[in-house]
Amino acid sequence: MKKIGAQTCAFSHPPVITFTASVAGKKEGAGPLGRWMDWIDPTDKMNQESWEKAESAMAQKAVGLLLEKAKKRAEDVDYLLGGDLLNQCSATVFGVREFAIPFFGLFGACSTFGEALSLGAMLLDGGFGKRVICCAGSHFCAAEKQFRFPLGMGTQRPPSATWTVTGNGAALLETEGEGPRITHVTTGKIVDYGITDAANMGAAMAPAAADVILAHFRETGRTFADYTWVATGDLGIVGKQLLCQLLEEGGITPGEHLTDCGLELFDHAAQDTHAGGSGCACAAITYCSYFHRKLAKGRGRLLLVPTGALMNTTTSQQGLTIPGIAHAICIEGVKPWSM
Amino acid sequence: MKKIGAQTCAFSHPPVITFTASVAGKKEGAGPLGRWMDWIDPTDKMNQESWEKAESAMAQKAVGLLLEKAKKRAEDVDYLLGGDLLNQCSATVFGVREFAIPFFGLFGACSTFGEALSLGAMLLDGGFGKRVICCAGSHFCAAEKQFRFPLGMGTQRPPSATWTVTGNGAALLETEGEGPRITHVTTGKIVDYGITDAANMGAAMAPAAADVILAHFRETGRTFADYTWVATGDLGIVGKQLLCQLLEEGGITPGEHLTDCGLELFDHAAQDTHAGGSGCACAAITYCSYFHRKLAKGRGRLLLVPTGALMNTTTSQQGLTIPGIAHAICIEGVKPWSM
Repeated sequence: MKKIGAQTCAFSHPPVITFTASVAGKKEGAGPLGRWMDWIDPTDKMNQESWEKAESAMAQKAVGLLLEKAKKRAEDVDYLLGGDLLNQCSATVFGVREFAIPFFGLFGACSTFGEALSLGAMLLDGGFGKRVICCAGSHFCAAEKQFRFPLGMGTQRPPSATWTVTGNGAALLETEGEGPRITHVTTGKIVDYGITDAANMGAAMAPAAADVILAHFRETGRTFADYTWVATGDLGIVGKQLLCQLLEEGGITPGEHLTDCGLELFDHAAQDTHAGGSGCACAAITYCSYFHRKLAKGRGRLLLVPTGALMNTTTSQQGLTIPGIAHAICIEGVKPWSM
Repeated sequence: MKKIGAQTCAFSHPPVITFTASVAGKKEGAGPLGRWMDWIDPTDKMNQESWEKAESAMAQKAVGLLLEKAKKRAEDVDYLLGGDLLNQCSATVFGVREFAIPFFGLFGACSTFGEALSLGAMLLDGGFGKRVICCAGSHFCAAEKQFRFPLGMGTQRPPSATWTVTGNGAALLETEGEGPRITHVTTGKIVDYGITDAANMGAAMAPAAADVILAHFRETGRTFADYTWVATGDLGIVGKQLLCQLLEEGGITPGEHLTDCGLELFDHAAQDTHAGGSGCACAAITYCSYFHRKLAKGRGRLLLVPTGALMNTTTSQQGLTIPGIAHAICIEGVKPWSM
C-alpha cells in the first residue's frame, strides 16, 4: 500500500520527469517567463484558420517537441494522458491523434496538468509502463469564444477576471533517467463554496486549493517550511488572497514561498491580465518552462497545485454554483533537498 | 512490469468488481435489459427542472445506490473516476460532488466507462488504494440538445443514427471481496478513418474497436473462442457490420459471441432506436446490470470494449473528421472459465 493518508500516495519508485516541452502564445512569450519557453508563436494562430485548430496545433507541437528533445519515438511511450478546456477535450484529441499513443483523456478543468501528472506517476510507480506523456493546454481566444463572449464584442472584464493562458505544456515521465522526481501526490476532492460569479474563478477554486494543501500537510507531516515553492495553478490575485485566509483558518500560516503560476507567468500590471493567468496551460507551461529547469539544475522542492473550476456555460446559465478541484504534486529537484 | 504487450496489462492481483449500480431512463427500462436495472426513472427527469440536472441526479443516484448496496461510506472509497458527454463533464461533477471522494474526471466520450475501469483497476493493482468507484452516464435529451437539435424541432434522424442512452452505471472495484475480476486491460489509441458524418458514429468508432480488439488478441494470444462475450459499447448495427469487416481484414473471424451493448439494451425494431443505443451510459448500464449479474453468478469471460467518438459541435462545424477510441477490459466470472 502506497497510501500514507486518505488522499496522499508516496511513491516507492518516484517517477522522473526527464524532459518537458513548453509552447506559448505571444503574450505568454512576452511575460516574465518568456525566456524559459521552448517555442513561442508570435501570432497565437500556429498557421491555422481557427483558434480551436491553433489550440490543437499547440498540443501537437508540444508533444512533438518533447519526443524530439527526449530522442524518443511515439512507440516508445506507454501512455499519453492529457486534456484541455474545449468541449469534449477536442484540442488534445485532435492535437495528439497522429502520435497513436495509448490515450487516456482527462478533464479536471485548469487542474488537468496536475491530474495527468498524478495518474501518470501512479501508472509508472504501479508497474504499468516505463514512459508516459502528461500534457495540458488552453487558448485565450478559443476559451473566450466558448465560455464567455466573442472577442470582437470587446466586452469589458471585471478586475477579478483572469486571463486564459495560450499554450501547451507536455512532460515526459520515466521510471529511469535524470531529472526532478515526483515523490508524492495528494488527490483533490470537489469542493463547492457556492460561488456563482463566472468572472471570479479564483474565488471558486481557492477552497479546493486550501483543502488539498491542508490534506497534503496533514498527511505528510510537512508545512510550508518544507517547500522551496508551493505553487497553485491559476488562482490569481483574488484567489490567492482567499487561499491565504482559508489556510490561516485551517491553522497554517502561508509561507512566503506560496505563489501562483497565474501570477508568475504575466507581469499583470504591465500586461493588463487583471487578476492573473488561468487555464489548463497556466500550470502546465509554468512548470514545463521555469520550475522544471530550476529543479533539473539543482536543489529545490516544489508542491505544484493545479486548480480547476468545474463549470460550463449551461451550468452557469442554470444558476448552479462553480465547484473547484485541485491536486497537489510534490516534485523534488535533482540534488538532495534542504532549506 | 505488468505490461504483456504495447497496449495490454495483465494484473498481478486482479481487482474485483464487488458491486454495481445501474440507473436507467424510461425507454431503457422498457427494453430487453430493463428487468436487470436497479433503478428506473419513468419520467427521465429525476424530479429536476432540466435534462442536464436530471443527468447529474442520475450520477448521484447511481453512486449513492452503489455505496448503499456495498454498505460502505464515501470515506471508505479511495478514488472516484468518471465522466459523461456534457461539456466539461458537468453531469458527473455536479452529481458526485456531495460524496467528497478524491476525484479524477475522465473524458473518453462513450468509451469513458472503459477508461474508468482501466485506470481504476490499475490504481488498485498498483497499490494505491483498496476501493475505487468507476462511473459513466449520459442522457438522451441533454445530448440531443447539446450535440444535435432541440427535441422540440422533431428533426428526422437517418437510419445510421444511434440513440443516446439515458442512465448512469457505477461499479465498485476492490482489492478484496467476491465478484467478477478484471484480469487484463488493453488501452486504445485514437484511430481516425476520416468519417465526417456525425449521424453515423458507429462508422467513426468501428476502426478504433477493431484496432483494440486485434491488439488485445495479438498481445494475449487469445481469440473470440476464449470469450463468452466480446461486447463493444455502442457501435450499433452499422458500426458492428464495419467492425466485422475490419476484423476479417485483420485476419480474425468474428465469433458468434460478438455483440454490442447498444444492440442488447434496446429492441431496436420495436423501440425505434434506429441503429441502436449509444452514449457513455450504454456500456456502463449494460455492464452494471446484465453482464455483471451473469458474471457474478458463475462462469463466463467478457471482453468489454466501450467505444467513443471524439468530436464536438465545433470540430464538426469546422469540417474535421471524427476520431474514435476504444478500450478493452477482460472481466472473468466468479467460477473458473471454460467454453
